[in-house]
Amino acid sequence: MSIYWSKKTKDLLPYVPGEQPKDRKFIKLNTNENPYPPSPFVIEAIKKAALENLRLYPDPDSLKLCQAIAERYGLNENQVFTGNGSDEVLAFSFPAFFEAKDKPLLFPDITYSFYPVYCNLFDISCNLIPLDKDYKIDRGAYVKEILNDNSTGVIFPNPNAPTGILLPLSEIITIAEAVKKKNQVLVIDEAYIAFAEGDTNNAFSAVSLIKDFPNILVVRTMSKEFSLAGLRVGYALGNEELIQALKRVKDSFNSYPMDFLAQTAAVEAIKDRDYYNGNNKKIIATRKKVNDELSLMGFSVLPSDANFIFASPSKSGEKSALDYFSELREKGILVRHFNRDRIKDYLRITMGTEEEMDIFIDACREIGA
Amino acid sequence: MSIYWSKKTKDLLPYVPGEQPKDRKFIKLNTNENPYPPSPFVIEAIKKAALENLRLYPDPDSLKLCQAIAERYGLNENQVFTGNGSDEVLAFSFPAFFEAKDKPLLFPDITYSFYPVYCNLFDISCNLIPLDKDYKIDRGAYVKEILNDNSTGVIFPNPNAPTGILLPLSEIITIAEAVKKKNQVLVIDEAYIAFAEGDTNNAFSAVSLIKDFPNILVVRTMSKEFSLAGLRVGYALGNEELIQALKRVKDSFNSYPMDFLAQTAAVEAIKDRDYYNGNNKKIIATRKKVNDELSLMGFSVLPSDANFIFASPSKSGEKSALDYFSELREKGILVRHFNRDRIKDYLRITMGTEEEMDIFIDACREIGA
Repeated sequence: MSIYWSKKTKDLLPYVPGEQPKDRKFIKLNTNENPYPPSPFVIEAIKKAALENLRLYPDPDSLKLCQAIAERYGLNENQVFTGNGSDEVLAFSFPAFFEAKDKPLLFPDITYSFYPVYCNLFDISCNLIPLDKDYKIDRGAYVKEILNDNSTGVIFPNPNAPTGILLPLSEIITIAEAVKKKNQVLVIDEAYIAFAEGDTNNAFSAVSLIKDFPNILVVRTMSKEFSLAGLRVGYALGNEELIQALKRVKDSFNSYPMDFLAQTAAVEAIKDRDYYNGNNKKIIATRKKVNDELSLMGFSVLPSDANFIFASPSKSGEKSALDYFSELREKGILVRHFNRDRIKDYLRITMGTEEEMDIFIDACREIGA
Repeated sequence: MSIYWSKKTKDLLPYVPGEQPKDRKFIKLNTNENPYPPSPFVIEAIKKAALENLRLYPDPDSLKLCQAIAERYGLNENQVFTGNGSDEVLAFSFPAFFEAKDKPLLFPDITYSFYPVYCNLFDISCNLIPLDKDYKIDRGAYVKEILNDNSTGVIFPNPNAPTGILLPLSEIITIAEAVKKKNQVLVIDEAYIAFAEGDTNNAFSAVSLIKDFPNILVVRTMSKEFSLAGLRVGYALGNEELIQALKRVKDSFNSYPMDFLAQTAAVEAIKDRDYYNGNNKKIIATRKKVNDELSLMGFSVLPSDANFIFASPSKSGEKSALDYFSELREKGILVRHFNRDRIKDYLRITMGTEEEMDIFIDACREIGA
């Protein structure tokens, strides 16, 4: 605290990202990064970029990147917004669509922990709708709150984090219809959907709903699916009016949040679908294997469609999730543990390479032995 | 307008950045970019960066960059905050230090036009203190408002934009002392101070005041001084409590706004002082020459310590500032014109290379003939 901080600053409850270790080499299974490097075309594009042009401001609208993204999803460029990681895109969407000091924004009690932080920053109240007993999003509870006029909008990730559980499009439509009746916006945060088995052609993505639901905003990140966490690229897809709102907020905050190299590299990444589909299939295969191995050890594992697994050690065993977290760390393996109600018995384990996950499984066996 | 926009979105008045032309080649004297390329070490560092590591999140605290910046100014790393351009750093400073819906923030009537935009976004009221008749910051007017309890803080650029006029440290101290008495923060936006003649050792920078004024925040950009507009790097210098406030706001918005390549390149830029001092001396020499030539043509030119000149065509001539703006554009030269009270008779002209400015001067002669 400081006499120079505003009241707002004093009241903030900042998000705490997973550790990025600076010294010792760890097997990093704690921040849901992709274990495979970016496409070779991405790396070439950066090396060949006209680096002397870094003296110039980048395109504030990232037009070429918006065009490449639009092409991938069969949209037009005015239905695409880009930002500095999906976190920035999500941050802009809160003041853009949800009313401050009004009815609450609805999202799951167990979800991406940046949502309550944004609510706090932008003075938006929230109503945390409990996941059901199987840790699934309870669509009925949302519909009830919305139709009873108890909401300013809805946001959730699909698959949800840190559970990894996918909500089928049919259930999303039920929520979307209620939200549409109230002229509110439904933000669907699809950070992990590329890892849903069978999603190669966006079969599970709400992108297909945009034409019928002018109030659905789909947010995606290039950090995980495209192995570009280090470059900070995220985007939103939705009808032009929603995109315009995000642009208004962005242009009231920072004209150029996407730098020249991020724009250049992201265009190449979006184009190289085969490379990324191949990697992401490997990750899905690794996930199955880790799921099976952990289940054999007595872990209860939630059914994941993400690039991580949410798993709880056997209740009959001696070691808690926190024990595993600490002992794995001693063995040079970082995973994530959230010390929060309902999930403190779980670990979130990012899928690394097959070799890394073999080491992880061996370590878990040693710890549990 | 849209039924899906929040009230906030409807009320925003976004900033409009200078044009970044996508097609025709222009001589770009409209967005205060440095005409010389970044240091060769910067370009090498990007090419040699471990680009396969782009799959990992960058350091959320930009520690190496903070250390390099701290070393340059004789500060410690906890006195440095980095962000996605100085615009992001400035944006964070508004909710960090100034109270929403309270007494007004003080800044000049003629200044960087992003300040009122931030006020609007963060619900901070403002009081625009008129520049004096010579377009200088009127320190007495600030002191009066502050001591009369009519402020939540103060922000101004030094040199001011778009005037280019430098406020001497002695006058800044007068304002800083009043602000300190009221436990408020004074933000000094030094985007252009590296172009003040004789500033090589930060002689004019308020950095030297930080040790005596725990409430002074100095904001700088690497866009102009370091020819890195395309990479989006800005930073703030001040006492640890101020830096902590900025971190709290940043961590409530986006954990990693500075990407891996921006961090990597900026470290090299900060170290290569000789290269940049050489370029910036050339820019100062060019400014003198352009100043003299425009004065000879009857322009009234404000005394600039920035990498641009603010100049008004002769009142006895036939052509207005807007005429010059339009006719220069037709000749392939972009400058900036602000259609606002007190300055609509002026053009803001960024200093290009000597060759570019010779072409500019010739074009002005033709237009005025």
